[in-house]
Amino acid sequence: MNGIAANAAAEFKIDARRIADRLDAIYECGGRDDGTHARIAYSPEDRRGREVFSEFSRRLGLSLREDPAGNLIARREGRVREPAILIGSHLDTVEDGGKYDGAYGCVAALEVAEALAAADFVTEHPIEIIVFADEEGVRFGNGMYGSSAFSGGEMSAFHDDDLDAEGVGRREVLSAFGVDVSRSGEAVRSRAGVHAFIEPHVEQGNNLNRAGHSVGVVSSIAGVLREEITIRGEANHAGATMMKDRCDALATAAVCIAKLPDLVAAHGEKYSVATVGRIDVVPNAVNVIPGLCRFTLEVRDGDEAVMERIERAFWAELARAVSASGATAERRELARHAPARMNAWVRAKIGLACAACGYDYSTLPSGAFHDALQMAKRFPTGMIFVPSVGGVSHSRMEQTRPEDLKAGAEVLLRTILELDACEGETDESI
Amino acid sequence: MNGIAANAAAEFKIDARRIADRLDAIYECGGRDDGTHARIAYSPEDRRGREVFSEFSRRLGLSLREDPAGNLIARREGRVREPAILIGSHLDTVEDGGKYDGAYGCVAALEVAEALAAADFVTEHPIEIIVFADEEGVRFGNGMYGSSAFSGGEMSAFHDDDLDAEGVGRREVLSAFGVDVSRSGEAVRSRAGVHAFIEPHVEQGNNLNRAGHSVGVVSSIAGVLREEITIRGEANHAGATMMKDRCDALATAAVCIAKLPDLVAAHGEKYSVATVGRIDVVPNAVNVIPGLCRFTLEVRDGDEAVMERIERAFWAELARAVSASGATAERRELARHAPARMNAWVRAKIGLACAACGYDYSTLPSGAFHDALQMAKRFPTGMIFVPSVGGVSHSRMEQTRPEDLKAGAEVLLRTILELDACEGETDESI
Repeated sequence: MNGIAANAAAEFKIDARRIADRLDAIYECGGRDDGTHARIAYSPEDRRGREVFSEFSRRLGLSLREDPAGNLIARREGRVREPAILIGSHLDTVEDGGKYDGAYGCVAALEVAEALAAADFVTEHPIEIIVFADEEGVRFGNGMYGSSAFSGGEMSAFHDDDLDAEGVGRREVLSAFGVDVSRSGEAVRSRAGVHAFIEPHVEQGNNLNRAGHSVGVVSSIAGVLREEITIRGEANHAGATMMKDRCDALATAAVCIAKLPDLVAAHGEKYSVATVGRIDVVPNAVNVIPGLCRFTLEVRDGDEAVMERIERAFWAELARAVSASGATAERRELARHAPARMNAWVRAKIGLACAACGYDYSTLPSGAFHDALQMAKRFPTGMIFVPSVGGVSHSRMEQTRPEDLKAGAEVLLRTILELDACEGETDESI
Repeated sequence: MNGIAANAAAEFKIDARRIADRLDAIYECGGRDDGTHARIAYSPEDRRGREVFSEFSRRLGLSLREDPAGNLIARREGRVREPAILIGSHLDTVEDGGKYDGAYGCVAALEVAEALAAADFVTEHPIEIIVFADEEGVRFGNGMYGSSAFSGGEMSAFHDDDLDAEGVGRREVLSAFGVDVSRSGEAVRSRAGVHAFIEPHVEQGNNLNRAGHSVGVVSSIAGVLREEITIRGEANHAGATMMKDRCDALATAAVCIAKLPDLVAAHGEKYSVATVGRIDVVPNAVNVIPGLCRFTLEVRDGDEAVMERIERAFWAELARAVSASGATAERRELARHAPARMNAWVRAKIGLACAACGYDYSTLPSGAFHDALQMAKRFPTGMIFVPSVGGVSHSRMEQTRPEDLKAGAEVLLRTILELDACEGETDESI
């Protein structure tokens, strides 16, 4: 057990009630005048959420600071100054988001700090709880701002002059929030200063529910490829043009879209997904045969080769449909991110922690993006999932049962202790 | 031959060159500063087109007037004052419309008047050429304004306060064009004052082309049913939601849309058509499973029972798709117009005229609406079609070959002579 006294671990007390109360308190910060709830990054609600988090941290004796990228960091000292064990997620939400996405990771980390403080337990490594800035990317269209800066990622995709829906620029919005965009890159942390990073998060899918497991060990964050497909047919009179004379761009697209689930079943693996989320036709009139249909295809999997297999199968289907209807098709790549494998050492420690706490667990990829995707590029990174009831997320309806909130925090605490007892990532520990 | 002297008929001279020149002259009236061509109803271009038509009419000795609905009427006297034989179509076009839709019917009628004048032939019945107002309905969204008023149709669908794209009301626009909307109903003509109505028009479909016929006798104007279908699934995270956990509104819709051509083939008749022309999904984002998909279904056929058969087959397909995906569907009727059968007496006369002129012809329904749809509600009505090259219409690319323009006018002239020689619609003539 890597030197952890089983007795000591047994004394730590994770409180489901306290976790739920803190989640409620943070959720209430998102209440707006129009009755909706949200904490859009850099909004007054986001700021209020951070203040509540900060107040919880101060009561636990944690020191607080915001780094140059707007990441809020609460630190509990260990026996050594560094490397630190990092736990983190985000407090910003999507529009009409729920209580758990992001906030759970921050609150679970507070619960660990609370349990350690209550037991008067000093870890070897300092523990830092990081509230990453703007994970969701709602305001300017691309997220993971804080974790990108923290992990030394490319910041050029975050344009200073990006505008939000009100036409206010990123530079101005962040400046009002206390962040100088030209200095965000200074938030980068050295590899040597970080022992490991863990992100606890709700699954946002239905896999843990279905398996009946309270905890999931994330194997990888799925890669994603996105492309825009444009089918050009021939707009024509919907009354005067016989069926056999038509070159209907939407009917052609529909054949491919209807077959997509079968293509994923035939060419994908257990966790592969593919989605047509956006579609537009021209002229989009009740009495005109669609002359143009433009839609997006998104494919995700933990294995890039699987993603490409599904993509090729879709292209083949598209080629068949276009050849049958006489339309033409062109593709434009919108995004292509490789999957991020979680660190094997950290994964093994999470697995050990689950076993020690007595929880069966699933090993599964994350279909959604997380700050851990950026962090994994630089630091030994792992993720702990807890179930989302019904797989619902990005919705006020999202929910996680209290016993699962507790299980995740217990596994998180145990994982921290396991990692804390290690010298660091070694080949043997994998 | 109902008293028509074959010799006399043979003397009439239809000139393909003259028809083409007049079409060119009217098309040029639609030229706009931005390089596009159109004669949107009540526009300066529409007015210029009417002036050119009027000038052609005056040179043929026709008397001119505009009725209270804005229909322009050119009259050639016969031996009796009434009932009159009416020939008509429209000069207004869609945006970027072509040279033939509407204008051909008006120019073919002028050609008949020219041929009669050149032969110094006085018909028994007066002949009136009617340029109907606002057939296309581009400006205010619903068309056949002039023919509705002329035939005593319900005018309440044409709201005085409908606004055009610039926010100008129908009352104001028509007033500037010289039409008092409150008096348009006075344009109605008595049944007794009309011997028959003929509308020559380009087919706008590809049937005559395919059959290799220069002329078509229209059997009916297809009825149309339009409905809006809303499928409600569940918007969810496109990465975290496994394929088997999805309730994708677009994927459900796509199954039905993809099968529509097969449903028409299985349940429709030769000229049945069905179209999904408009589709919108919510939230329409690349990374969100569509939670809602709303689209239109349009079905047309010359037989209402056939339309309903196709509609029911689509509903059954929709019910299957929704049941398989777990989504729900609701339908809202947008429009339901019964088919309009062309008058059997007039049809028979057009058929006789084709035979007399030596043209093979197709008997076919019109998939598109025409002023004849309104006129058929009150008057013995028939339509003569000429081919559209490639079935292209509502486009600057629309085209009809000179020999077909000529054939249509020859058949029109002969039909007028046939009708003129009759006492009127009788059972025996059907």
